[in-house]
Amino acid sequence: MAHQAIIEIRTAARGMSNITARVAEAVAKAGLQTGLAHVFVRHTSCALIITENADPDVRRDLETLAQRWAPDGDPAYHHDLEGDDDMAAHARSVLTDSSVTVPIGQGRLLLGTWQGIYLWEHRTHGHLREVVVTVMG
Amino acid sequence: MAHQAIIEIRTAARGMSNITARVAEAVAKAGLQTGLAHVFVRHTSCALIITENADPDVRRDLETLAQRWAPDGDPAYHHDLEGDDDMAAHARSVLTDSSVTVPIGQGRLLLGTWQGIYLWEHRTHGHLREVVVTVMG
Amino acid sequence: MAHQAIIEIRTAARGMSNITARVAEAVAKAGLQTGLAHVFVRHTSCALIITENADPDVRRDLETLAQRWAPDGDPAYHHDLEGDDDMAAHARSVLTDSSVTVPIGQGRLLLGTWQGIYLWEHRTHGHLREVVVTVMG
Repeated sequence: MAHQAIIEIRTAARGMSNITARVAEAVAKAGLQTGLAHVFVRHTSCALIITENADPDVRRDLETLAQRWAPDGDPAYHHDLEGDDDMAAHARSVLTDSSVTVPIGQGRLLLGTWQGIYLWEHRTHGHLREVVVTVMG
Repeated sequence: MAHQAIIEIRTAARGMSNITARVAEAVAKAGLQTGLAHVFVRHTSCALIITENADPDVRRDLETLAQRWAPDGDPAYHHDLEGDDDMAAHARSVLTDSSVTVPIGQGRLLLGTWQGIYLWEHRTHGHLREVVVTVMG
Repeated sequence: MAHQAIIEIRTAARGMSNITARVAEAVAKAGLQTGLAHVFVRHTSCALIITENADPDVRRDLETLAQRWAPDGDPAYHHDLEGDDDMAAHARSVLTDSSVTVPIGQGRLLLGTWQGIYLWEHRTHGHLREVVVTVMG
């Protein structure tokens, strides 16, 4: 049996929001012992990743690298209707993924000690982002 | 209970094919209300991604960026048995992934309005690609 | 019903270990005919990928490209507590992913002929890595 919850995240600007506690809450409500938690973002200009939850410099450095992987306002882009960050955000989203799946054991997310689940806003301005958590076991 | 379908996609050349309708069809046949649809490509030189389904320039610009991420015929490559696009295709496949998983709610794929599921052929010539759709709930 | 197994992998150094047989063993033990095998690594400085299992030059060339995607010791990094490979490993992990999901059909992994599941150690030195395999059907 699958349990589903919708989480809304308001992002402030480009950057990462730790949503681990929100996902853990949906897992607790489902009441399953063993299974999977699938987290999905319904947009093509932000992403979900798992990365280090301790030193904020990790997220800062990921931001620096992402700007190399898909520079804002690159002269080669044809898609720029919504500004310099528009195409960059789509490309960053493809590289960094629209979903993460985490195992559940003994009723909780089996993340490692240093792993956190982050919504990465790839647009320069904040947006309201809809995340679907599906818990199965 | 898991439902499984095999979809065959004939690609014409490097580039993306929208396979959302094919995946939605497999989901409809499974007849589940809530769960997950997992889509998997059985090859290491193409990939599955979720990206914007409106402006075709997004896919064109992703192609431009992919050629930077893993240039064809890079002099540093050792693996080039099948031509200049061989190693580039494997690298693009690792960056862009062999599967996507989409939540199902009320019997249908919970994609956002602007999200489409694409098979991205990374070889320069077309191939017959096998995709496995597994629906669970 | 979900079946779960923990696999420990000792990596020798930066590079890839083929873990397909270990995952296949967990799938065989679960005894399911149709479903999904989810493989998850509980660390943020290594990753799981699916790539070509034949020519070792593919893995060698992926290594070359990864060093371009996230160079060791880049002067722009702020996070370097554990050395030149520290931030590079986190970035490579985000690009290459903490999990892979493979369909199961007729009781076995539905990988293509040339697909293998690899744990990619992104740190320059070896580590003991914990992998969670969850099988559902």
